[in-house]
Amino acid sequence: MQRLKPSQGLSQLLLIRSQSSRISKGIIPLLSVWDGHLSSRWRSTGGHGGQKYFNNNGQKFRFALAGLLAGTGAVLAYKLHQSKVQWAASSAQLPVTSSPPVYTLEEVTKHRSLDNGVWVTYKGDVYDITEFVSMHPGGDKILLAAGGALEPYWALYAVHKEEHVLEILSEYKIGVLNPESLKRQESTDPLDPYSGEPSRHPALQINSLKPFNAEPPASVLADSYITPSAIFFKRNHLPVPKVDPETYRLEIEGLPSGVVSVTLSELKSRFPKRTITATLQCAGNRRSEMNKVKQVKGLNWGIAAISNATWSGASLREVLLHYGFTPEVAINAKHIQFEGLDKDVTGAAYGASIPLNKALSEEGDVLLAYEMNGEDLPPDHGYPVRVVVPGVVGARNVKWLGRIVVSHEESKSHWQQNDYKGFSPGTDWDTVDFKSAPAIQELPIQSAITHPAEGSSVERGDEEVTIKGYAWSGGGREVVRVDVSVDGGNTWHVAKLYSSDLGQNPAPGRAWAWKLWEIDVPLPDGAQELEIVCKAVDNSYNTQPDTVGPIWNLRGVLSNAWHRVKVKVKDDQK
Amino acid sequence: MQRLKPSQGLSQLLLIRSQSSRISKGIIPLLSVWDGHLSSRWRSTGGHGGQKYFNNNGQKFRFALAGLLAGTGAVLAYKLHQSKVQWAASSAQLPVTSSPPVYTLEEVTKHRSLDNGVWVTYKGDVYDITEFVSMHPGGDKILLAAGGALEPYWALYAVHKEEHVLEILSEYKIGVLNPESLKRQESTDPLDPYSGEPSRHPALQINSLKPFNAEPPASVLADSYITPSAIFFKRNHLPVPKVDPETYRLEIEGLPSGVVSVTLSELKSRFPKRTITATLQCAGNRRSEMNKVKQVKGLNWGIAAISNATWSGASLREVLLHYGFTPEVAINAKHIQFEGLDKDVTGAAYGASIPLNKALSEEGDVLLAYEMNGEDLPPDHGYPVRVVVPGVVGARNVKWLGRIVVSHEESKSHWQQNDYKGFSPGTDWDTVDFKSAPAIQELPIQSAITHPAEGSSVERGDEEVTIKGYAWSGGGREVVRVDVSVDGGNTWHVAKLYSSDLGQNPAPGRAWAWKLWEIDVPLPDGAQELEIVCKAVDNSYNTQPDTVGPIWNLRGVLSNAWHRVKVKVKDDQK
Repeated sequence: MQRLKPSQGLSQLLLIRSQSSRISKGIIPLLSVWDGHLSSRWRSTGGHGGQKYFNNNGQKFRFALAGLLAGTGAVLAYKLHQSKVQWAASSAQLPVTSSPPVYTLEEVTKHRSLDNGVWVTYKGDVYDITEFVSMHPGGDKILLAAGGALEPYWALYAVHKEEHVLEILSEYKIGVLNPESLKRQESTDPLDPYSGEPSRHPALQINSLKPFNAEPPASVLADSYITPSAIFFKRNHLPVPKVDPETYRLEIEGLPSGVVSVTLSELKSRFPKRTITATLQCAGNRRSEMNKVKQVKGLNWGIAAISNATWSGASLREVLLHYGFTPEVAINAKHIQFEGLDKDVTGAAYGASIPLNKALSEEGDVLLAYEMNGEDLPPDHGYPVRVVVPGVVGARNVKWLGRIVVSHEESKSHWQQNDYKGFSPGTDWDTVDFKSAPAIQELPIQSAITHPAEGSSVERGDEEVTIKGYAWSGGGREVVRVDVSVDGGNTWHVAKLYSSDLGQNPAPGRAWAWKLWEIDVPLPDGAQELEIVCKAVDNSYNTQPDTVGPIWNLRGVLSNAWHRVKVKVKDDQK
Repeated sequence: MQRLKPSQGLSQLLLIRSQSSRISKGIIPLLSVWDGHLSSRWRSTGGHGGQKYFNNNGQKFRFALAGLLAGTGAVLAYKLHQSKVQWAASSAQLPVTSSPPVYTLEEVTKHRSLDNGVWVTYKGDVYDITEFVSMHPGGDKILLAAGGALEPYWALYAVHKEEHVLEILSEYKIGVLNPESLKRQESTDPLDPYSGEPSRHPALQINSLKPFNAEPPASVLADSYITPSAIFFKRNHLPVPKVDPETYRLEIEGLPSGVVSVTLSELKSRFPKRTITATLQCAGNRRSEMNKVKQVKGLNWGIAAISNATWSGASLREVLLHYGFTPEVAINAKHIQFEGLDKDVTGAAYGASIPLNKALSEEGDVLLAYEMNGEDLPPDHGYPVRVVVPGVVGARNVKWLGRIVVSHEESKSHWQQNDYKGFSPGTDWDTVDFKSAPAIQELPIQSAITHPAEGSSVERGDEEVTIKGYAWSGGGREVVRVDVSVDGGNTWHVAKLYSSDLGQNPAPGRAWAWKLWEIDVPLPDGAQELEIVCKAVDNSYNTQPDTVGPIWNLRGVLSNAWHRVKVKVKDDQK
């Protein structure tokens, strides 16, 4: 299996996709065509109007820019589109004016497609990037930003921090936002109507606003091994509490020493900072597929209620031992309960628990995390402290952690007792007995296809289709194989797996992070449609069930059947 | 979930099957009809000839006997058949002779069916039990012994040790074996042509004689929670070595102290005797189902290459720590290798390894076992010492253990490197790369139907069908649910689970033993045939895949798709 540095994930994947390319890497500086914030193109306000300023003399410049933008991967990506592209001449040959057109946000948001033109804003300037879409090294994901600000998307991908990206962008400037629009854009998030809640990334696909529940677009999920915090799926059960780090206290109960109260700085200073990379998944990930079989209760998650991050904090084991946990305590104690600082209208806090042995095991790697991806936890992910229980369903990874109780019994919370449990397909709301099923802890083997998208098409002339996705299993079980079929499961191919190279092979039972996977599969002769299927296998050789119906359950949790995506095969246009 | 004492398993299950019965439990002693070894019936040599000695006056006697034989369960079982049964009159009314007919083994073995008569032998006497078959509390399992000796079957079920069982049997005596036949029966096992190998239970269904590989009949597998050692599945890779317990030495290498040599008595005296109940399963269990999809290489196991036993011995962890294992050793060591005393013609021993963390974990429960079900290990199961690695594939539970090596690498044996690994269905012998897959350790979730048998029938008038089976998962994951369908998987019912009550609920991650399960499902209106299906769920909520094809692999291992059994629904005879 190949291993990647997290920061290389995106470009490496692009490289793989185009590894047979033979394009030269000659680079020509673009400084001569750059004119700061002034651009000849602001006279072009239509979606395709800019084409008249292009000619083939500019081709090499743009070629060079693409290379600078995102490394060789971009160059190779460009190759795929070069036959369709026309190029701008040097702007030096065109008249320059000093007063750019002024637009409102409303005008910008009308331009969100290739048909209507693709406009974006960046620091108050307005750009028509319609022509650049086909050259974008990241493909049509650029369209996620169409009609709005670029900033949140660029924040996801470090590659955009290159100076040359701004150089490219400047070519497409068509004007500026009016001051009122700029102020609105900077001060409000039109997707978040709730005062007090943090602002969220506009790319998130929202399943519920209050509480806030959202997932990233599936198309970007496998772009980086580490999911940027801004688009890491959000699963809140209650409003996000505002916690003052100075007055924050973590209470620990159930130890012989009585109640212990720990400050944030004590948590950071008294215990070594431990870091793990761990994938979290909502129990309801892929619930929408169960809804198609028969209606279930719950948020209609797609395939992206799963994300991967690095988490740093104190070891729960070390904290408990420090404050007096002894083998004698374990004689009666069987569970560690967690309570969040997020509360419902009655004042009841979110709560959950995990088995004691998971919390106390040296190999359990349970963290009281105060950092996510190297920064303070964002408000949506539990600032200032959450528990990260790797290998275990998201619901037990309690955010805004306020209290830990060492107990002989499970959490009495609704979410531990009467939710997040699996049942037989034959069990309905009239017959369900929540006591009859164990609370979900470790999750089963899972995988899904992030590319291509359902309903998209591939060209027959391409001869093969590139398929990408993620795979993960609970309980620290490492994904060892992903099988992919393009004929609905009749024949199977083995995908290449990708992972971080930060560590060695994960120790047995401690593979907390997902694998990304990719494969190029030849198009079957004469196929008009492909039914692409994936299934993963972990190192206990558990695998996913074939179909959704037999694992359907009234709460729509644990949806881990083979993932299926249908795409058309288009005959090449002559 | 109900819990049973192991010794109650059989009768309890029978009770459940017949729990609606209202039969009285009046018991009448049989002493008046017992005549020692002399019996009027030895004049009857045909399969059905005995009927003329029966009349209805004997009904109450036989009823009483059945009750004594196996408790209330037997009484209730009898009810199912009473309308068909005729009863013998008291033998006191019949003439008695002093010279019984003499039979050869060959004559006995011709009587193996209800059509030809069912004869058995016991301590040199010959019995025609044709008429008793329908009254046998254990059902038609009695036919397993047809044509041969009763002793090995009675040894499986403690219930036969009751004196009254002999009383019943005596009624059916028809003669004696001739001396030559008796000698042969006592000294040889016609199913075992290899000198030096232990004798085996004749009920075993043999997949290979050399090495010896056999499984119990599926129909008896779920009769007792603890599988009697004699019918516990046997999976030998090489000839069974004869080991002298006095000269036996277990060598331990790779510790700072150098090579350690441990005697059997040291192993027993220096370390506390630990006991666990653990299910072992061959990686190839249910391989025959893969063979039906496409030919695989390997023994054609049915569903019974899995069994459950208690194992007692020294903790491997405690032994390693005693002889000098330290955390420093763990810096380089990653695996514990095992070598058997069984060797091939080149002198190479059977070998396997497990990850160090499994061996060293307090919760791993790995034993150097010297007892199975409370007795010395039988020769086929590793006498005098085997390693029991609960939750892990049988192949790593090395028998006749001669050497333990603490190592940085896995065992180099064929069985670790080039066998016992899983592959994609698309991988064939031309493309397989054994290095690309991990050695099987923990096994995936498994379940199968032991009753009713494929091709059998149920009567429509019974209105429901009783279905039984086993379920187990690797890695100490507890089976939490078994779903059963009688319509091929369209609708599902939840079975009752049974387990031993020897312990409490197993600690998380330490559920090493299987669950037996049972359910009565109503017969669907008008169904002519049932496709009975089962699938199990463990506490990581992993479940079995729907079909065999997509998990097919060239070695035919890890066959854990839904188990399917087809039975006919017979309309009642008017």
